[in-house]
Amino acid sequence: MSLTPDPAPDLVPAGLARAIAELPLVDHHVHGATHRDLSRRAFEELITESDRPVPEWMTSFDSQAGYAVLRHCAPILGLAPHCSPEEYLARRARLGAAEVNRRLLAASGIAHFLVETGYRGEEVLGPSGMAEASGVPADEVVRLETVAEQVAADGCPAEAFAGRFEEALWERSRTARGLKTVAAYRCGLDLDPARPAAGEVAEAAGRWFAAGGRLADPVLARHLIWAGLDRGLPLQFHIGFGDPDVDLRRADPLLLRGLIELAEPTGVPLLLLHCYPYQRHAGFLAHAYPHVFFDVGLGVTFSGARAAALVAESLEVAPFAKILFSSDAWGPAELHHLGAELWRRATARVLGGFVAEGEWSPGQALRVAAMIGSGNARRVYGLPPLDPRGHGQTTHD
Amino acid sequence: MSLTPDPAPDLVPAGLARAIAELPLVDHHVHGATHRDLSRRAFEELITESDRPVPEWMTSFDSQAGYAVLRHCAPILGLAPHCSPEEYLARRARLGAAEVNRRLLAASGIAHFLVETGYRGEEVLGPSGMAEASGVPADEVVRLETVAEQVAADGCPAEAFAGRFEEALWERSRTARGLKTVAAYRCGLDLDPARPAAGEVAEAAGRWFAAGGRLADPVLARHLIWAGLDRGLPLQFHIGFGDPDVDLRRADPLLLRGLIELAEPTGVPLLLLHCYPYQRHAGFLAHAYPHVFFDVGLGVTFSGARAAALVAESLEVAPFAKILFSSDAWGPAELHHLGAELWRRATARVLGGFVAEGEWSPGQALRVAAMIGSGNARRVYGLPPLDPRGHGQTTHD
Amino acid sequence: MSLTPDPAPDLVPAGLARAIAELPLVDHHVHGATHRDLSRRAFEELITESDRPVPEWMTSFDSQAGYAVLRHCAPILGLAPHCSPEEYLARRARLGAAEVNRRLLAASGIAHFLVETGYRGEEVLGPSGMAEASGVPADEVVRLETVAEQVAADGCPAEAFAGRFEEALWERSRTARGLKTVAAYRCGLDLDPARPAAGEVAEAAGRWFAAGGRLADPVLARHLIWAGLDRGLPLQFHIGFGDPDVDLRRADPLLLRGLIELAEPTGVPLLLLHCYPYQRHAGFLAHAYPHVFFDVGLGVTFSGARAAALVAESLEVAPFAKILFSSDAWGPAELHHLGAELWRRATARVLGGFVAEGEWSPGQALRVAAMIGSGNARRVYGLPPLDPRGHGQTTHD
Repeated sequence: MSLTPDPAPDLVPAGLARAIAELPLVDHHVHGATHRDLSRRAFEELITESDRPVPEWMTSFDSQAGYAVLRHCAPILGLAPHCSPEEYLARRARLGAAEVNRRLLAASGIAHFLVETGYRGEEVLGPSGMAEASGVPADEVVRLETVAEQVAADGCPAEAFAGRFEEALWERSRTARGLKTVAAYRCGLDLDPARPAAGEVAEAAGRWFAAGGRLADPVLARHLIWAGLDRGLPLQFHIGFGDPDVDLRRADPLLLRGLIELAEPTGVPLLLLHCYPYQRHAGFLAHAYPHVFFDVGLGVTFSGARAAALVAESLEVAPFAKILFSSDAWGPAELHHLGAELWRRATARVLGGFVAEGEWSPGQALRVAAMIGSGNARRVYGLPPLDPRGHGQTTHD
Repeated sequence: MSLTPDPAPDLVPAGLARAIAELPLVDHHVHGATHRDLSRRAFEELITESDRPVPEWMTSFDSQAGYAVLRHCAPILGLAPHCSPEEYLARRARLGAAEVNRRLLAASGIAHFLVETGYRGEEVLGPSGMAEASGVPADEVVRLETVAEQVAADGCPAEAFAGRFEEALWERSRTARGLKTVAAYRCGLDLDPARPAAGEVAEAAGRWFAAGGRLADPVLARHLIWAGLDRGLPLQFHIGFGDPDVDLRRADPLLLRGLIELAEPTGVPLLLLHCYPYQRHAGFLAHAYPHVFFDVGLGVTFSGARAAALVAESLEVAPFAKILFSSDAWGPAELHHLGAELWRRATARVLGGFVAEGEWSPGQALRVAAMIGSGNARRVYGLPPLDPRGHGQTTHD
Repeated sequence: MSLTPDPAPDLVPAGLARAIAELPLVDHHVHGATHRDLSRRAFEELITESDRPVPEWMTSFDSQAGYAVLRHCAPILGLAPHCSPEEYLARRARLGAAEVNRRLLAASGIAHFLVETGYRGEEVLGPSGMAEASGVPADEVVRLETVAEQVAADGCPAEAFAGRFEEALWERSRTARGLKTVAAYRCGLDLDPARPAAGEVAEAAGRWFAAGGRLADPVLARHLIWAGLDRGLPLQFHIGFGDPDVDLRRADPLLLRGLIELAEPTGVPLLLLHCYPYQRHAGFLAHAYPHVFFDVGLGVTFSGARAAALVAESLEVAPFAKILFSSDAWGPAELHHLGAELWRRATARVLGGFVAEGEWSPGQALRVAAMIGSGNARRVYGLPPLDPRGHGQTTHD
């Protein structure tokens, strides 16, 4: 048994694979890398979306994400591909978190990060830390629920909540590129799409303040979304795959149809994140509605050698101007690198397959890769074109 | 980067690809081609299912359907594959709609059209126009909702609606080959499957006549379906993918289970159309119930280079006698040609793959292609065998 | 048109294909083989999950399962691959059921059967019959609903049902390796996940005894599941694909989320069976929850040449320690053989593809095949390691 050349020789024209490998990417939804060194246990718990302890009869390395770390990150740390978990972790510890981050972020070829700061943001690098570690620009995406929870934590009468939240949102998002909602986690997407009345919001806020805990009331979730639409920045929705906190049935993007139609007159771009295993549903919505966009990030990372299947399913009915790239990485910079590297390999395989089968021209394949990899995000978020001094032009294989 | 031979050389035995390319097809669900010349805007709006204006920052040509037009229709109009949209549209305008239709319909190799006339039928060719433009037979499929709306437009007391509809249906369908319902669009498939009582129908008709608009009441939708079952012609259901008018969640064929079981004693064939992305659900129903059939038309056209994935998923648990071919084209004859051409290529790739992998014999592959391409439709709709004088024997590549 | 070598030459390293072909398997969910000779009609009705008569205008042989019988079972009976149904059935009749079973079970390479005895168990071989026919160990899996129906048949006051069921379950499962519930068939998985109160159970039992028929009350289904969790053996759930008795919408494993979370503290392994077309949903649950496992049996058999697609989709987000092999065969030993043979071929193709594309090492591929083929089941069910005297070491191609 020996490895054949990589990627599969007949299906991906070499020029196309190389061009896609060198595309500077915009990662339109990502979190910070961790600046801490990680024990084996901590590392294993961070390369899965499960929040349960890893049972002693298994290891997280026996997964697509685990094998992808050993295949694609090992060489960036100076090891052979497919090394053992022990070799990998020993090498990682020897290099230290800062050097590991520097290498993996550079190798990712990501030229612009949009960093969502609302999930355990204090444990990982913020936008400026990411810019420093990577040498490329990093802007912020603000999570609506985190802003609301800060308003509540600061103390606020229930009837003042709506106004205080609005003020805080505008203040917090002054320089942000986008907003994000995790309503899918908190109450499911099967919510009434209409903007709630002021009285309802005050009442729901009162219930929430009395009960404590995180924001999970659907009336409040709707209020946040509508305040986000008022703010007018592109609005990201968590969809589908995530940690066990999500009820996957209630995270189907088709549940958003009513909201999508009500929001259409605002002109605000709605960005459906991740979407696994509902990428075809998201593609239909992106086909039907001009203001709907989506990506298959996170699922790409966690499906590893199967990432091409997800990318391929995202390229069915959606117009190519409606698909974006994201890694949704949080914590180990391996996830940032894999988000990019697996997307590049999957995209080269899928688009290269279309070319090899005589369906697309090589020029069309390259055009679509560039649209998804960065062009669409630059247009939707109003990002400046690539810095000509070479940011994002780092070499990566 | 250069194109490799087409289709991918090692996976499709050449004889099989050729045989499938030459199969005369029965298109069991299609609409008329347009006889009008089309502006760029009009053309772009007709190669998407979205009814929204195409945003100025994108073009419909940047989609699977768009690239498929440039790949597979350009040569029929005398252009190189993968030409630019501008070249394509200029050439199309120079030839004129009649010549474009003649070429594309002939190249499709469709030998018999079953034309559904109920959707903006006055804007496109009817069955006789299609027969004339294509040189092959074209029969009619009657849309139940359109007949009911004509009864309403003609003026009718609410309590007479049921009877008048029945009369009109029998009259309109005298020479029809099948009936069609768009209940999925109008009220969703999650309707009570039982035949409604006469009093309920009269009451619902009264509500509808008072409110005006199109037929969308689930009681009336059920009445139409049951009257259609009484009529006894094969009954087609819109399922899944379509324009933004459809709530895709409520267009899942599994929602029809109750109706399928109640309708089973009638012996009327039920034909689930399109089905994307629910082709596996449709395949299960076709496996379980002798009177259920389905196709993956429309999705094949709009997924272009990915059509093989849909065809492959339709070939899992369904018996091969239960799968049909359709294009569901409406308007530009490009969609008629692509429905056929992409189905042929996808089918050759999928069945050829089964042969190349040693799972099927070439004879089995050819047998199944012929069943799906025409044999099953000829049996279900009682169509005569292929006209031996050569209809449908037109050359197509 | 000629067959290329098998399997597809460039994508599966030969050593890996051979190693997977020789893996001794644990079939963790299977039923008995029939010891009766079968008429053509009987055979055709047993190679489909439909319980309807096969219409006279089609044959069950025109299906993935049918073509797989002619491809993979014919050589075991001494015929050429892709023979005709008539040749196959004539040869089968000449050999007789006992010899057919002996050959096909040996060729399957299954080294340990866990036989679910609750479905028409009197018509097929039991665990000891299976052990005798195959020469390898066979243990029992007890179906909860069948035990409850026996308690009812034996006569029992409604208020005593809960206690009598518990007693019967412990008695019936003394030597069993696992339990199984078909709640998906009987009342759907959208049931209240909580353990029902004693009074509710007695009341539901009273209703059931008065009405007669099989157990279908959701309160009773919940009682059986919770009694099964008390018993503590691994608990199997029918999920997804099956006969027309199943409402596929209500057999989605995501519906089990509430029960999965309530059952988590018991530590009892929950095994989601079959799962087609919901294998990605099952993979998410196996990713999120340490006690959730799944397989893609049955769907593999009935999708034949497409089995690799199902296996591939099962290998996305689930940790590899959470995936098992089963055939779910019942009746013709062809289904036992195909369950194993198609799984081997699909697994070799999918994992071999990962290796050929440079994503996995050959060692990783072999490790994962062995985990899914037998290692995970041996750990979950506490089975002894492979009998060193050679059981399960039979040759199979």
